[in-house]
Amino acid sequence: MNEFFNKDIISIKDFNKDQLEKIFSSTDKIMQLSPTERREICKGKTLGYLFYEPSTRTRLSFDSAMASVGGNSLGIADVSSSSTQKGESLADTVKIMSIYSDVLVLRHTLDGSSRFAAEVSEKPVINAGSGTEEHPTQAIQDLFTMKKEKKKIDGLKIGIVGDLKYGRTVYSLLYGLGNYDVDVRLISPESLRIRSDSVYEIKKKLDFTESTKLEDHIDDLDVLYVTRIQKERFPDEEEYLKVKGSYVVGLDLLKQMKDDSIIMHPLPRIDEISTDVDSTKNAKYFQQAEYGMHTRAALLGLTLNENGF
Amino acid sequence: MNEFFNKDIISIKDFNKDQLEKIFSSTDKIMQLSPTERREICKGKTLGYLFYEPSTRTRLSFDSAMASVGGNSLGIADVSSSSTQKGESLADTVKIMSIYSDVLVLRHTLDGSSRFAAEVSEKPVINAGSGTEEHPTQAIQDLFTMKKEKKKIDGLKIGIVGDLKYGRTVYSLLYGLGNYDVDVRLISPESLRIRSDSVYEIKKKLDFTESTKLEDHIDDLDVLYVTRIQKERFPDEEEYLKVKGSYVVGLDLLKQMKDDSIIMHPLPRIDEISTDVDSTKNAKYFQQAEYGMHTRAALLGLTLNENGF
Amino acid sequence: MNEFFNKDIISIKDFNKDQLEKIFSSTDKIMQLSPTERREICKGKTLGYLFYEPSTRTRLSFDSAMASVGGNSLGIADVSSSSTQKGESLADTVKIMSIYSDVLVLRHTLDGSSRFAAEVSEKPVINAGSGTEEHPTQAIQDLFTMKKEKKKIDGLKIGIVGDLKYGRTVYSLLYGLGNYDVDVRLISPESLRIRSDSVYEIKKKLDFTESTKLEDHIDDLDVLYVTRIQKERFPDEEEYLKVKGSYVVGLDLLKQMKDDSIIMHPLPRIDEISTDVDSTKNAKYFQQAEYGMHTRAALLGLTLNENGF
Repeated sequence: MNEFFNKDIISIKDFNKDQLEKIFSSTDKIMQLSPTERREICKGKTLGYLFYEPSTRTRLSFDSAMASVGGNSLGIADVSSSSTQKGESLADTVKIMSIYSDVLVLRHTLDGSSRFAAEVSEKPVINAGSGTEEHPTQAIQDLFTMKKEKKKIDGLKIGIVGDLKYGRTVYSLLYGLGNYDVDVRLISPESLRIRSDSVYEIKKKLDFTESTKLEDHIDDLDVLYVTRIQKERFPDEEEYLKVKGSYVVGLDLLKQMKDDSIIMHPLPRIDEISTDVDSTKNAKYFQQAEYGMHTRAALLGLTLNENGF
Repeated sequence: MNEFFNKDIISIKDFNKDQLEKIFSSTDKIMQLSPTERREICKGKTLGYLFYEPSTRTRLSFDSAMASVGGNSLGIADVSSSSTQKGESLADTVKIMSIYSDVLVLRHTLDGSSRFAAEVSEKPVINAGSGTEEHPTQAIQDLFTMKKEKKKIDGLKIGIVGDLKYGRTVYSLLYGLGNYDVDVRLISPESLRIRSDSVYEIKKKLDFTESTKLEDHIDDLDVLYVTRIQKERFPDEEEYLKVKGSYVVGLDLLKQMKDDSIIMHPLPRIDEISTDVDSTKNAKYFQQAEYGMHTRAALLGLTLNENGF
Repeated sequence: MNEFFNKDIISIKDFNKDQLEKIFSSTDKIMQLSPTERREICKGKTLGYLFYEPSTRTRLSFDSAMASVGGNSLGIADVSSSSTQKGESLADTVKIMSIYSDVLVLRHTLDGSSRFAAEVSEKPVINAGSGTEEHPTQAIQDLFTMKKEKKKIDGLKIGIVGDLKYGRTVYSLLYGLGNYDVDVRLISPESLRIRSDSVYEIKKKLDFTESTKLEDHIDDLDVLYVTRIQKERFPDEEEYLKVKGSYVVGLDLLKQMKDDSIIMHPLPRIDEISTDVDSTKNAKYFQQAEYGMHTRAALLGLTLNENGF
């Protein structure tokens, strides 16, 4: 029996290195299957999604992942604006959706929502992003991308740049990286540093430095993980413009990077990375999106098959 | 040939007891099939839905039912806000959707809309709720739940409590119960009594009493069917609060009920039933939702297969 | 190898007569297949749609076409109001969707959008309507309808009536008709004549006359192609009412037409054609919608199968 069968995927913190590596090798396997073989994995199974916070991108990634393994998807893309929301509790909505489907995919604004949903659901729950910190499938996608593109995770020098305060992606990635021996540099404007209340927990498993200057690290990194900086996060526009300019990744900056370094981004990208970088061999953000589809397909396959695939 | 093949499902009034029992036994059969066998029933068939009144819950029930028998669904979840609505008539929209699908599922605010749609459609039409009275698939789901959980319908003492004026669910259920020998007690605030213009027709087939007091009946019922009371239905808030309190089903009330009585609710539930009732053996409302998926799957299978399944 | 394999479908101008005829014969073939055979054609393939301009009708036509050949569809029905639209470029959105699907279907307000999308997409792109002129799959559907219903296109006398200024359907149809030897009469109010900047290009391949009077042509036409006249296009209501009245196709007008003439309309129809015409043998607009589903299925099959089907 595979250990992921019928298990919830709530937090990246619940996964140890051994488990992550198993997911990676399952993803490798799924990528080598023919489309026909692949569609046998979740044939006839139904994914039910509940998005309390709309995220077309994540939803489509799950939808296409499920289609690729032969299953289908149904659900509510925007619960808050849907007719379902006649004051019904999360618990009731989850219970009903767990009747209609074999696995639930939940996106919610609140911390703890997925854990709670898993308790009331009869079917396994996959957290597609919740609260301030959790986005386990994105972290798995990101770690898998590093593994595939750099052939290892241990030993990597990883710069994470941009808005490190908001955005659960960075937190989940850091917790995931805590399973590896990596050298992490967090680079952000002062006002968008990682939240101090999370630092303590992350530091227990992972060492990192903090800095405001990308140029101090750029020539040394194996992985540059870029995140979006949203204008509305800044108290005044001047500070925004200053910051924005200094973190934009263009060909100039790329020239200072190691030849075999890779650039990642959880997408959507606005202008943090200029489009002329897209065609370079270092740009891996679209590849990362593709890996996300495959890692999600593997997770669905593991969750829904007692003996794996 | 099965008598439901290619037939519309417009009103619960069109079904006699014999037909209802056939649908119930088809549902029993479908629930015993393996997922693989089940997916053969409507393999490759397409359900087209047109919801002029959005109802995520009913739509998902049909969608998951169709998926479970191997078919797929497409359509318009909210016709009134869709681009289709450029002044196009119901007749034209129905004609087009009947080109794109093998069976149509229609939800509409107006009485008679489904009957009309069935006349212009080349494919069978299933009414997923229309006007003030009709919701035949909900009634079938409710009757099937009673049958399964109480092993019979004839002879049952059934209390229906809450808002009996608005909400087509109650009317369809009463017309459906008219095929059985049951003892029905309608319990509602004075202002939310069943509409007098419907009483005459229902009385032709079904005897019922009306009352405002749930406590007068509670110890005698086999089935307590609870419906939502919406605040906005009341002229003043004080009356609402008074009523609301007196009909809430909690553990106290449950203690007064017969040991083998069941509690039903069409859902969504707001606070008419307190959540501590959910884990009791009497609570059958989530089971009812599951039966709804199976009865709809059976109806789709009967409608789309000349020789049944 | 079939010449349409892995090719984009951007503009009807890219198709010559020979290619159109090949598509028509593939459509004929697909219509003769059993549902089971038909579902083998794109089995397990995924259509990804991106609608920057919502069009439920066109989207459902593609969705049902893809379902009929065994594939499935996913995507964004209204990109502009979706969460995807956090300032992401068309290029990035297209790149991501081309990861999630085997063929892209794009609808966009801007001219050239599909050509651009095809350049950045790794998968073939089908234009489902863009800018002022392009709607190639609608043109193919319209030409196929003429071919099927009149047994030929060459030699037909075709009247196109209504709003010829706005609405890309008419332009695509005219460019498509440019491959045939046809006698085309454009009939519209003065203010809704075909745009002068397009006349020059169309005239290179197709001869047509322009007129404001439908009655001058009505007894001579083989095909009457009716389009919707939108009130909001007129500077004052009086002119609108005058025009509207004179172009409505009713039984009176039909009596003046040749016995074997056909009436077409891209739908939705408001009141340009009165409903009592629907049941006449001349009315082919619903048939046209059905052909649209089949021509799209054929195009999907050709695009996705190296050796055709």
